[in-house]
Amino acid sequence: MAANVPLSHFLATAVDAAKKAGQVIRNGFYQTKNVQHKGQVDLVTETDKACEELVFNHLKQHYPTHKFIGEETTAAYGATELTDEPTWIVDPLDGTTNFVHGFPFVCVSIGLTIGKVPTVGVVYNPIMEELFTGVLGEGAFLNGNPIHVSSKDELVNCLLATEVGTKRDKLTIDATTNKINSLLFKVRSIRMSGSCAMNLCGIACGRLDLMYEIGYGGAWDVAAGIVIIQEAGGLVFDPSGKDFDITVTRIAAANPLIKDSFVDAYQQAE
Amino acid sequence: MAANVPLSHFLATAVDAAKKAGQVIRNGFYQTKNVQHKGQVDLVTETDKACEELVFNHLKQHYPTHKFIGEETTAAYGATELTDEPTWIVDPLDGTTNFVHGFPFVCVSIGLTIGKVPTVGVVYNPIMEELFTGVLGEGAFLNGNPIHVSSKDELVNCLLATEVGTKRDKLTIDATTNKINSLLFKVRSIRMSGSCAMNLCGIACGRLDLMYEIGYGGAWDVAAGIVIIQEAGGLVFDPSGKDFDITVTRIAAANPLIKDSFVDAYQQAE
Repeated sequence: MAANVPLSHFLATAVDAAKKAGQVIRNGFYQTKNVQHKGQVDLVTETDKACEELVFNHLKQHYPTHKFIGEETTAAYGATELTDEPTWIVDPLDGTTNFVHGFPFVCVSIGLTIGKVPTVGVVYNPIMEELFTGVLGEGAFLNGNPIHVSSKDELVNCLLATEVGTKRDKLTIDATTNKINSLLFKVRSIRMSGSCAMNLCGIACGRLDLMYEIGYGGAWDVAAGIVIIQEAGGLVFDPSGKDFDITVTRIAAANPLIKDSFVDAYQQAE
Repeated sequence: MAANVPLSHFLATAVDAAKKAGQVIRNGFYQTKNVQHKGQVDLVTETDKACEELVFNHLKQHYPTHKFIGEETTAAYGATELTDEPTWIVDPLDGTTNFVHGFPFVCVSIGLTIGKVPTVGVVYNPIMEELFTGVLGEGAFLNGNPIHVSSKDELVNCLLATEVGTKRDKLTIDATTNKINSLLFKVRSIRMSGSCAMNLCGIACGRLDLMYEIGYGGAWDVAAGIVIIQEAGGLVFDPSGKDFDITVTRIAAANPLIKDSFVDAYQQAE
């Protein structure tokens, strides 16, 4: 089916789904939330589940033969293997902690892989009204305007985004803060906004210059952002400098001018 | 003069000034910026200077006998002493690094002290269209809607905001990351958005539960936020738990239910 459908159709369908989910997110954001706990800091809300159902139903209606991977379905039914089939990879609500607290970096992330290649990406933040889109070979956009990664080529001028994650064992926390300590000597400043997908889009539109995150939720956090960054002229890679692997939860992103310096700095911080 | 003018007049004048400055910030935010450097990470833009002039001129026109303290004037003419006279304390553009990079946490902050007591506060983020206001004894508002601090009473449920500051010597960086390391074992997560005034307003509206910052620019970063937090039911204090002192650049804020736990955790992290 994928071969017969222009990629722009997939994008339009994904944007429709994202806008629908965005309305649900927006409504919930301003209300008192009925929160379930998954461990200490990993919150899932009714909105999360409602949005995933809504997005999957919308996509399935249009593309009944496609495959689907989502945060909630994976949590409930175990990991779904990524195949060469057209596969929608969805995070219905990225930034759930932000959502629960009312911090405005929340979004729905919808990515489509074909032949395992990220091909269409939609990230929509309904609170800040930012719709990021990307289609393989057709560019990246924020609210319809073309976006590009920054042209920073010195670490000292770079704004770096990262997150402290949800694990609270001593080994993880020490590794996290040692890395931040080391990188602080080299970059301009650090931002932590609590949404992996929004950090990726921040790289794509150049408001952030560098990002890395270790141990995020899964492929659904990054599938859309990868297309958007690549189409905005940026690179997605493993923080070690090796190729990015969607099956492990390690990601970094930057513009091509600064990638090598960043990888060097990151490795020195190991 | 202050005795004869209702506080609501001061607020209305400050809001007008903030809206004017906000328009200049908004215009600059989406353009290429002509950046001057004040040290490695402290950026000042034309917008910063234009906004301060605009805000001061607006306020002086209405209140010619009042005193004025601003980031740019203080940098240019030395520190202005805070007296009992009505004194406007203004940060024309808080989050200058964000402004330069296009990261949306930027704002103008306008506070009025009378008898050294923070009495009127206006913080306006023209990118996210958020206008925070507070008047002593008359409540705090976001875009006209009443706001309140969160009711979190356990650290493990709290979202903590802090910043890494602009100093890059080893002593400062180690102290900064050691503190973060220690607090990460106790709180839900950490956000760094790059604007002290926006962090204060985040406490006021409950999207953040805890904040602290050491070594921020000066009183202009906090004068408005203090009123807004206090009128939203929150507390502003020195991170040690002692009274807040506007002449030193150490601040913490929280709701009254969590303050003591936070101070304990902060002190254990010393």
